[in-house]
Amino acid sequence: MEGTNFVNRQELRESGVHLPTQAGISGSALEGADSIVLSGGYEDDRDPVTGRQVKHQQLVRGNLALAVSHRDGLPVRVTRGSRHASAFAPAAGYRYAGLYRVDDHWRETGKSGFLIWRFRLTRWETAWPAHSSQEATQQPARRPVLVQRIVRDTAVARALKAMYDHHCQVCGERLETAAGPYAEAAHIRPLGAPHHGPDSADNLLCLCPNHHVLFDFGAFGIGEDLQLLGLPGHLHVHPQHHLNSAHLEYHRTRYLHWK
Amino acid sequence: MEGTNFVNRQELRESGVHLPTQAGISGSALEGADSIVLSGGYEDDRDPVTGRQVKHQQLVRGNLALAVSHRDGLPVRVTRGSRHASAFAPAAGYRYAGLYRVDDHWRETGKSGFLIWRFRLTRWETAWPAHSSQEATQQPARRPVLVQRIVRDTAVARALKAMYDHHCQVCGERLETAAGPYAEAAHIRPLGAPHHGPDSADNLLCLCPNHHVLFDFGAFGIGEDLQLLGLPGHLHVHPQHHLNSAHLEYHRTRYLHWK
Repeated sequence: MEGTNFVNRQELRESGVHLPTQAGISGSALEGADSIVLSGGYEDDRDPVTGRQVKHQQLVRGNLALAVSHRDGLPVRVTRGSRHASAFAPAAGYRYAGLYRVDDHWRETGKSGFLIWRFRLTRWETAWPAHSSQEATQQPARRPVLVQRIVRDTAVARALKAMYDHHCQVCGERLETAAGPYAEAAHIRPLGAPHHGPDSADNLLCLCPNHHVLFDFGAFGIGEDLQLLGLPGHLHVHPQHHLNSAHLEYHRTRYLHWK
Repeated sequence: MEGTNFVNRQELRESGVHLPTQAGISGSALEGADSIVLSGGYEDDRDPVTGRQVKHQQLVRGNLALAVSHRDGLPVRVTRGSRHASAFAPAAGYRYAGLYRVDDHWRETGKSGFLIWRFRLTRWETAWPAHSSQEATQQPARRPVLVQRIVRDTAVARALKAMYDHHCQVCGERLETAAGPYAEAAHIRPLGAPHHGPDSADNLLCLCPNHHVLFDFGAFGIGEDLQLLGLPGHLHVHPQHHLNSAHLEYHRTRYLHWK
């Protein structure tokens, strides 16, 4: 599929790669952006007669959807049009370039003198720093860039974070950003061998990053009565969130560091 | 180098792969573990006569070094000995297996009835979830496991975190774990294109995970007088930490979301 050419936006739509036939960004603030078409020129803030940008871009609609993709680490399909200023742009029509990761967003003053939003997209396969680190090992002259922590996310996790409106179940904190509130989902019994915890809501907590780190490193656990162990207080639990006590016990037994 | 065979521990030492000739784990609580040799059997807590484990393992020495590698995301060289119970173990001597990432640690009751510490090591090249996510895209029946956030680390960052003794420069918080205190280093002007911020202390902040997320998403910035913008209070700055005001301005201009 990657590298496939399309004659026009209608063909691109029929393939399922990018549904809107006008908008360059497909998606929403709720789901993030699933697909973008790079074809030169902006969609918004243009004077309909002169084609010039006439005001600062806001972080709304398509721009906000891309910022949400950044916040949640969601993959975005990228398609280049022939008018896109890139060596990879096709001579005519459109070409699907594959999955990308939004790993940064910021704003700059554009040629018009007004602010524009910019996004850095990295190919999904090369977005991971294994390469940098291998280089660092093999070529000691380069500074090593390692990874301290990877926060995984799943579809189930997104629903759980929405249930708590991104409030931490331990401290109630909700991190407010322009891309929307930020929280992380923590698996109680970890995914993968040898733990094989399920990716289901009864095995997940909605936490702020600080309490996520502390939970993963066993600085606190959760008792059968939902009392916090290692921290004062109780876990906040939504009436529709049914935790599996066996998973909580799994975490207590293996991860919790008793003082 | 990966796949290289060694006749004995002395040869392994001379190659530089693993310096200790007895200990299975090379490293320290300060630097983490740089190398381990898997050869069956435990190093510690054994009765010198019977060879049996006689007490619970503590998270100290080699085990603590591996937990620090987990905390900081440091790579570990892995070598397998012929006595290691694995299909990848060599028939005789030792074989270097490559770089691994410690992505989990916990404890379990061993055969002796006493607790042992366990570590999950994943090959460095496959530790990244790009694979899972590609599968998720190509085979919708599998549940997608995405990555919400990657926290990068560098050698300079480690020194800065030590300078602050892992206290957050915004809130003073220090996350306490059995693997030692946890903090993250935030680049003020980001690394990589198009920002090309330097990996130097004048471009770094020592932050708790919560304030790292908020800083990266522009929920707060830092003024010339080190006053926080978007949050009350001032940035705490160590007398030996000289911040570059141009980098702070770079972040304010491009990332800070003015209300």
